[in-house]
Amino acid sequence: MASLEEKRHTLAHLLAASIAERYPHAKATIGPAVDNGFYYDFDFSGGPPAKETDLAQIEEAMRDLLPSWSEMTGTEVSEKDARDRFAGNPYKLELIDGIVASGEPITLYTAGNFTDLCRGGHSENPAHEIKADSFALERIAGAYWRGDETKPMLTRIYGLAFDSIEELDAYRTQIEEAKKRDHKKLGKELDLFVFSELVGPGLPLFTPKGTLVRDLLDDFVWELRKPYGYQKVEIPHITKKELYETSGHWDKFKDDLFRIQTREGHEFAMKPMNCPHHTQIYARKQWSYRELPQRYSNTTACYRDEQSGELSGLSRVRAFSQDDAHVFCRMNDVQKEFLNVWDIIHAFYPAFGFDLKVRLSTHDPEHLENYLGDASVWEKAEGMLRDIISAKGVAVEDGVGEAAFYGPKLDFMAEDSLGRRWQVATIQLDMNQPERFDLTCINEEGQKERIVMIHAAIMGSIERFLSILIEHTAGNFPVWLSPVQVRVLPVSEKHADYAARVTETLVTAGLRAEVDAANESLGKKIRAGKGEKIPYLLVVGDAEVEAGTVTAESRDEGKLEAMSVEAFAARVVRETSTRK
Amino acid sequence: MASLEEKRHTLAHLLAASIAERYPHAKATIGPAVDNGFYYDFDFSGGPPAKETDLAQIEEAMRDLLPSWSEMTGTEVSEKDARDRFAGNPYKLELIDGIVASGEPITLYTAGNFTDLCRGGHSENPAHEIKADSFALERIAGAYWRGDETKPMLTRIYGLAFDSIEELDAYRTQIEEAKKRDHKKLGKELDLFVFSELVGPGLPLFTPKGTLVRDLLDDFVWELRKPYGYQKVEIPHITKKELYETSGHWDKFKDDLFRIQTREGHEFAMKPMNCPHHTQIYARKQWSYRELPQRYSNTTACYRDEQSGELSGLSRVRAFSQDDAHVFCRMNDVQKEFLNVWDIIHAFYPAFGFDLKVRLSTHDPEHLENYLGDASVWEKAEGMLRDIISAKGVAVEDGVGEAAFYGPKLDFMAEDSLGRRWQVATIQLDMNQPERFDLTCINEEGQKERIVMIHAAIMGSIERFLSILIEHTAGNFPVWLSPVQVRVLPVSEKHADYAARVTETLVTAGLRAEVDAANESLGKKIRAGKGEKIPYLLVVGDAEVEAGTVTAESRDEGKLEAMSVEAFAARVVRETSTRK
Repeated sequence: MASLEEKRHTLAHLLAASIAERYPHAKATIGPAVDNGFYYDFDFSGGPPAKETDLAQIEEAMRDLLPSWSEMTGTEVSEKDARDRFAGNPYKLELIDGIVASGEPITLYTAGNFTDLCRGGHSENPAHEIKADSFALERIAGAYWRGDETKPMLTRIYGLAFDSIEELDAYRTQIEEAKKRDHKKLGKELDLFVFSELVGPGLPLFTPKGTLVRDLLDDFVWELRKPYGYQKVEIPHITKKELYETSGHWDKFKDDLFRIQTREGHEFAMKPMNCPHHTQIYARKQWSYRELPQRYSNTTACYRDEQSGELSGLSRVRAFSQDDAHVFCRMNDVQKEFLNVWDIIHAFYPAFGFDLKVRLSTHDPEHLENYLGDASVWEKAEGMLRDIISAKGVAVEDGVGEAAFYGPKLDFMAEDSLGRRWQVATIQLDMNQPERFDLTCINEEGQKERIVMIHAAIMGSIERFLSILIEHTAGNFPVWLSPVQVRVLPVSEKHADYAARVTETLVTAGLRAEVDAANESLGKKIRAGKGEKIPYLLVVGDAEVEAGTVTAESRDEGKLEAMSVEAFAARVVRETSTRK
Repeated sequence: MASLEEKRHTLAHLLAASIAERYPHAKATIGPAVDNGFYYDFDFSGGPPAKETDLAQIEEAMRDLLPSWSEMTGTEVSEKDARDRFAGNPYKLELIDGIVASGEPITLYTAGNFTDLCRGGHSENPAHEIKADSFALERIAGAYWRGDETKPMLTRIYGLAFDSIEELDAYRTQIEEAKKRDHKKLGKELDLFVFSELVGPGLPLFTPKGTLVRDLLDDFVWELRKPYGYQKVEIPHITKKELYETSGHWDKFKDDLFRIQTREGHEFAMKPMNCPHHTQIYARKQWSYRELPQRYSNTTACYRDEQSGELSGLSRVRAFSQDDAHVFCRMNDVQKEFLNVWDIIHAFYPAFGFDLKVRLSTHDPEHLENYLGDASVWEKAEGMLRDIISAKGVAVEDGVGEAAFYGPKLDFMAEDSLGRRWQVATIQLDMNQPERFDLTCINEEGQKERIVMIHAAIMGSIERFLSILIEHTAGNFPVWLSPVQVRVLPVSEKHADYAARVTETLVTAGLRAEVDAANESLGKKIRAGKGEKIPYLLVVGDAEVEAGTVTAESRDEGKLEAMSVEAFAARVVRETSTRK
């Protein structure tokens, strides 16, 4: 039985066959299987191109061809035969050049009446193995031949393909849902952040509501960190380049750095990371082993000169806020300090309903040139991480080549409510920067001892975490995190006084409550409150004024029983303080 | 009777006379009166120079000459006579060129046997009017002729001079005290901040203690602001240059901006101010007059490309944190909003024992080219500020030409414990940026109405405020602001348990308390605690353990009566919460 990838690859051929029939002038180029489906790139320059509106017909043509594809077989051919067959197609000829140069055999695969140059990996009986309703053409995009912008622009047709229509539908529903939850759209609707043409792309500005959410998230991390002895520090966002020449960031991040030439001709850079600055706070004095670990925590912005095309909402920005921390400690503190951070991460993510997976990200032994330090240091550091994982007793994935350039790390992956995985928190062991910055403590023998550094971010980038959280919750933030927790809606003018008194009671209880005093219908006010995903809407009319109660419409639980203002306040205060 | 300035000017002549006697090869150049005294610049290149060690003798020689200066008179002379008299002194000849060019008369002033080129303003009877013990030579420094580094380097001798020895001594004591209180020295001793060679000058890094102090100060400002409806916002520290072209900052701050060329060739800048970014948060939607004022508050860093020679500790830095706020409101809200900020400032500064003076900083009508907008806008804005001052009913100083380039402002000057004045808080009215960014609200008539902006900073630069506060308090921060409020000192090992219990009680009460468990003598621990200016040192020995009490040594009040731990904790909690 063919694998899903083989089916997808086969469907790329089927697409090419259908295009060949309907657009005989089109030159087929390459067509691989990809995540969720397949694509094929065509050169339509010899005649009319396929358009989005043609996709349904092309898809039907594929379905028509499929029953005739009861066999798909490959044959090895000579270079000459191959060149003859694709004589009119310069793309295939270029591919043949490559195959010849590599010394591999040239193979052609045929199904039905269609033959393509291919190295194989298909369904052997597409008509039998591929369900006619399990795939669909998705969209058209432009793509340069071989991804090279100096080469011709081709037309890429994307298809979705799964084992069954159920899986195809589930995927489409997920995409549909993800679109509805798009954080760029919700961020605007919930008035959390904004981009300005004048400030530029990749540089979000946070509104009062967005800033409040950021601060609440950061406060939560701080609350979890504080009992473990972390202390806040503060650093400038720029530095002379000498700092990064010493740390190794200058070489590694050169192209990504925002660089500054000062009026006196010195070269400065905006920080892409905080660790080198933090080493300079540690380095201000000679520490005794008795004073270690020193744990510095700092929520602060980092900068990367990303290309405009790579930017996307809060997911990929040019300035992002890291909830960063660095522990300066001795080798024998490492395990305890790692496990402490692990505990913090495990207290943080489940509070939002995220499931977590852990990956051990190690260096790629084939490419030592990408890393600081020599193999023995890496072996030691990675050995310590494996010991920590054993001590914790959990299963982790291996991520060879995923290490930071200065050391191995544990990366945490959050699975969101749509089943998508996001890399979020990280704990990293760094034996290289302490070496380069000559960081030491005086040990029990009165001698200088090299220390190590642990890098620990809980959210990582607050902007990115916020984008994930918005999509995960569809903007329905938990009560403690909602910018407005309660909105009081007076039915008419004559209930305004009571609404104000209720609101004051809630505000005095420490809640974020407000009155909607606008001169609008109750229905419109309720719709607005729901649109803003406010956890509680309190409609107050004659009944409430008379009974001295409130009737709450809970976003998550529907209409609640009438209760006293005090009882309602106590409920919301409890939900807030317990981060329910 | 001669004014102090005339006496100082006369003493500059007396210094030149004394130098002429002892260093006949020295060429006198210019010698004015300055704040606190006078100086005179000499060219010693024709022979041995005067050195710091010679100052006492030169000063004595001045005292010896003084009785013979019973008259000081001026005579107008011809250009030829003047040139003949100073034939060997190219500096005086150059000065004569200047006087001739200006068309002013050339005057010579003589006292005793000494004659100098001078436009006058002296004591007429120095021997009688100047007290021999009221002046002193202070130090020697290099100075370029006419302050031009392409011209010869001269030797500048500084003198101090006052009306009496008492005032001279008082000034010297103040300088002495200021040196002891130098924030750069105390900042290191109290471990508040540090500079790194690798990060560069003007870029302070804040230690845990320094960060705590910064945060406590900022929290205080926020606590004062919040009741007035301010909301926090957050912005990136960079922007496309287009933002500053629109705001006018690009022209005005061009040389002071840290500029960035991106990999894609765009020009960015690090922000020198926050107002243009905040306009973009306001501009995200069309506001109704009912939603105004919008009050955005933001503690965030600003950057200036200062020259290395201008940098000094935290007083003048390249990256500083502003506790900035902008109120977007209608014209008729201005007075109320200004008075609110004024109240905040008057709640903040007296909490540290600062006296405040207010200055109305207006534009310079002679130099309209330095400002945005036309004269009528300035007239209107300054008129509004005068009305606010009348409403407040206080006396203010006039600061013509001290306005921001976008509008007039109220500047607040704090007088510190050494009698020095520092410009600190500011409230500014801006009718120009709303125009340039087209900021509006919809008014009662349903029409777009231009709004105005108020800029309000309470501390201004946190770094600079901190430098002033350190020197004002000599590092003796009030209890609520002290990084360590209480340190518990066990007399010996056997009191360690009790010390730990006491500390836990204090920490549980929310205080910043710690044990000094070092293996050192009590005397040394007490000296360390006093050196760190910790408000309370609690020595616990046999007596305290037995009685279950603590005996506190208060930094400000000396030894306190023994009391229960709870009573002591309550005292310090009270001092903290009331910011006593």
